[in-house]
Amino acid sequence: MNGKFIVLEGLEGAGKTTAFNTVVTQLKELGITDLVFTREPGGTPLAEKLRHLIKHETEEPVTDKAELLMLYAARIQLVENVIKPALAQGKWVIGDRHDLSSQAYQGGGRQLDREFMMTLKSSVLGDFEPDFTLYLDIDPALGLSRARGRGELDRIEQAGLDFFHRARARYLELVEKNPKAVTINAGQNIEQVTADIQRAVKQFVDSVEKRT
Amino acid sequence: MNGKFIVLEGLEGAGKTTAFNTVVTQLKELGITDLVFTREPGGTPLAEKLRHLIKHETEEPVTDKAELLMLYAARIQLVENVIKPALAQGKWVIGDRHDLSSQAYQGGGRQLDREFMMTLKSSVLGDFEPDFTLYLDIDPALGLSRARGRGELDRIEQAGLDFFHRARARYLELVEKNPKAVTINAGQNIEQVTADIQRAVKQFVDSVEKRT
Repeated sequence: MNGKFIVLEGLEGAGKTTAFNTVVTQLKELGITDLVFTREPGGTPLAEKLRHLIKHETEEPVTDKAELLMLYAARIQLVENVIKPALAQGKWVIGDRHDLSSQAYQGGGRQLDREFMMTLKSSVLGDFEPDFTLYLDIDPALGLSRARGRGELDRIEQAGLDFFHRARARYLELVEKNPKAVTINAGQNIEQVTADIQRAVKQFVDSVEKRT
Repeated sequence: MNGKFIVLEGLEGAGKTTAFNTVVTQLKELGITDLVFTREPGGTPLAEKLRHLIKHETEEPVTDKAELLMLYAARIQLVENVIKPALAQGKWVIGDRHDLSSQAYQGGGRQLDREFMMTLKSSVLGDFEPDFTLYLDIDPALGLSRARGRGELDRIEQAGLDFFHRARARYLELVEKNPKAVTINAGQNIEQVTADIQRAVKQFVDSVEKRT
């Protein structure tokens, strides 16, 4: 049986790293132990090199379109060379970000043309998509102040607050429409966030087991 | 007055480097001296880094789609940060390859979906296109034997002969349809090729001067 692809999404400072650990622990408790971890952009040798260019290019201004194209180049490498092979071997893949990040940041934040975004996604990825997405929703001002506390921000994280408000709006819009995605209120205290994630993961795993 | 963008296209071993020098010499003789030279993929700091990944990535198989997306990321950087500003300053830009190479190599050679190729081009580049293209047509077997004589071939140049036959067919098809492109028979002796290029460049410059 094929594995499942679970993705964590959210703005900077939403608590993705903590949530990631919660998901992994919960899956293991539920008996799902053959796990593969990915992050985007990145997760393959070429995709990691692209990640570096995307986040740290300083020698010239990076156009919004080049940023998006590099993100999709990295993504298709990861999907074809890592995620699909792992799923085919029955492994579960836990992803730190996937396509929804591009929709939110480059589509919402950078305001790239919506039709172009959709055409690019379907042309590059076809019908490949996560089986389950946990979106950690946070007020951008709170998230950014948390992220800043962690240290220096990369090129994309340096965009202004308006950018992150637009990204959040796009996240909320797309998660709302997606039956395979849930929103976690990441502004709550950590115990509550953890409990919500555990419950959501358990429901997803139960639904998978019911279907098989 | 805006400058003009002249592009040289052709398979490996078609003689682009010699042709490039012929074009530059001819333009200078015609009094056009404020020239900018570009090559693709490349020509900006970020685009040159992408060029290296496109041509020399060996740590993992590069998917056809990632190759295409990196090419367009490099291209839009070059167009926005180098070519358009130069043209706006009245400079003439001479390009070693541009979009037609992607149409021929990735569209024809790699057989990527034609509609996707066209959507990507128009979404990324809009209506930007060269003012004049010289396509150096050569039999792929002859071109490759010349290119091999020059030394090691890069990742793309290592594709088989069938690949280059498909690329040539796509070149010929698109140049045929394009009123701003001419085919030069690069299988002729060097004096004849040079004379044909000189004549074509002169006709183009004359047509520009007539319009102004």
